Amino acid sequence: MPLVKVSLSKKRYAEQADDISAALHAAQVDALDVPVDDFFQVFTPHDEGQIRFSPTYLGVDRQDLVVVEMTVTRMFSVETKGHFWDSLVKHLEQKGIRPSDVLVAWTENNGAEDWYAGTR
Amino acid sequence: MPLVKVSLSKKRYAEQADDISAALHAAQVDALDVPVDDFFQVFTPHDEGQIRFSPTYLGVDRQDLVVVEMTVTRMFSVETKGHFWDSLVKHLEQKGIRPSDVLVAWTENNGAEDWYAGTR
Amino acid sequence: MPLVKVSLSKKRYAEQADDISAALHAAQVDALDVPVDDFFQVFTPHDEGQIRFSPTYLGVDRQDLVVVEMTVTRMFSVETKGHFWDSLVKHLEQKGIRPSDVLVAWTENNGAEDWYAGTR
Repeated sequence: MPLVKVSLSKKRYAEQADDISAALHAAQVDALDVPVDDFFQVFTPHDEGQIRFSPTYLGVDRQDLVVVEMTVTRMFSVETKGHFWDSLVKHLEQKGIRPSDVLVAWTENNGAEDWYAGTR
Repeated sequence: MPLVKVSLSKKRYAEQADDISAALHAAQVDALDVPVDDFFQVFTPHDEGQIRFSPTYLGVDRQDLVVVEMTVTRMFSVETKGHFWDSLVKHLEQKGIRPSDVLVAWTENNGAEDWYAGTR
Repeated sequence: MPLVKVSLSKKRYAEQADDISAALHAAQVDALDVPVDDFFQVFTPHDEGQIRFSPTYLGVDRQDLVVVEMTVTRMFSVETKGHFWDSLVKHLEQKGIRPSDVLVAWTENNGAEDWYAGTR
């Protein structure tokens, strides 16, 4: 049950929400082996000036940042997370989205006891 | 100091924000024994298409999803969390809100050192 | 790579977003020794009624609450976090913002494996 939240500019939302959604979803199915219908995403479009970031931190060329927050059950190894980042980059690039414009924060909770999904 | 964030459709926000707020609050008072005045909630209404979800994952009939993120101090047992989910379902149903339409992600931080609330 | 999300009223956003941004950034540079260009913030302005809170919990006089969520790599001691809160209060006060009006939830992830920032 990853929950994925995406904060992005209104322009990007209008033009690329579906592509960003698909890339995030494909990566979690491919690399994390999450069921295809385990799909929960919340997009929040922002006005200019609301998403503030360094355009160069870590030597990256950031132009129109997409901020992704993932809440994920603690169960994936560092290696599997590496596969997820690789897969996300691949799927973003296939959609014509620069991975440089994406920041993802992955946060974990403990297990089934930390989710309610209309059932338990 | 649970912090509760609620993402929901504009329609639901207009019609049910108070009921959803009350159900979440009642459950944390009843099941977690949180003080009545320990109350912090942020609602974000969303346009159609911004909250994306599987309508059937885990065999649940989801129609107009309410996504709840709770940040809670790490101090509750799995059993107590179970009581919280039971209480939340009860309070939602009392307000006429289908629990099937609610997804909650519970995430923990470490303790008082991870909160600033106008005082420490 | 702290990721900082700020939920606040539209009025405060219009008048004080830059000051709040600067205070949060200065505190993380001063107390956490985060590089100056490690800077990622997302502001979400809210209509009245969307940010709901106790005006008095813990004996604090809250009037127009600013809710801050920080996602931070697990690496700071309780003592260092204390320095951060002290620094944040100092910087808020220098900007004329009442620390009483600020709630911060600090949540941690594991390390570099839990971040993607346009590179790994």
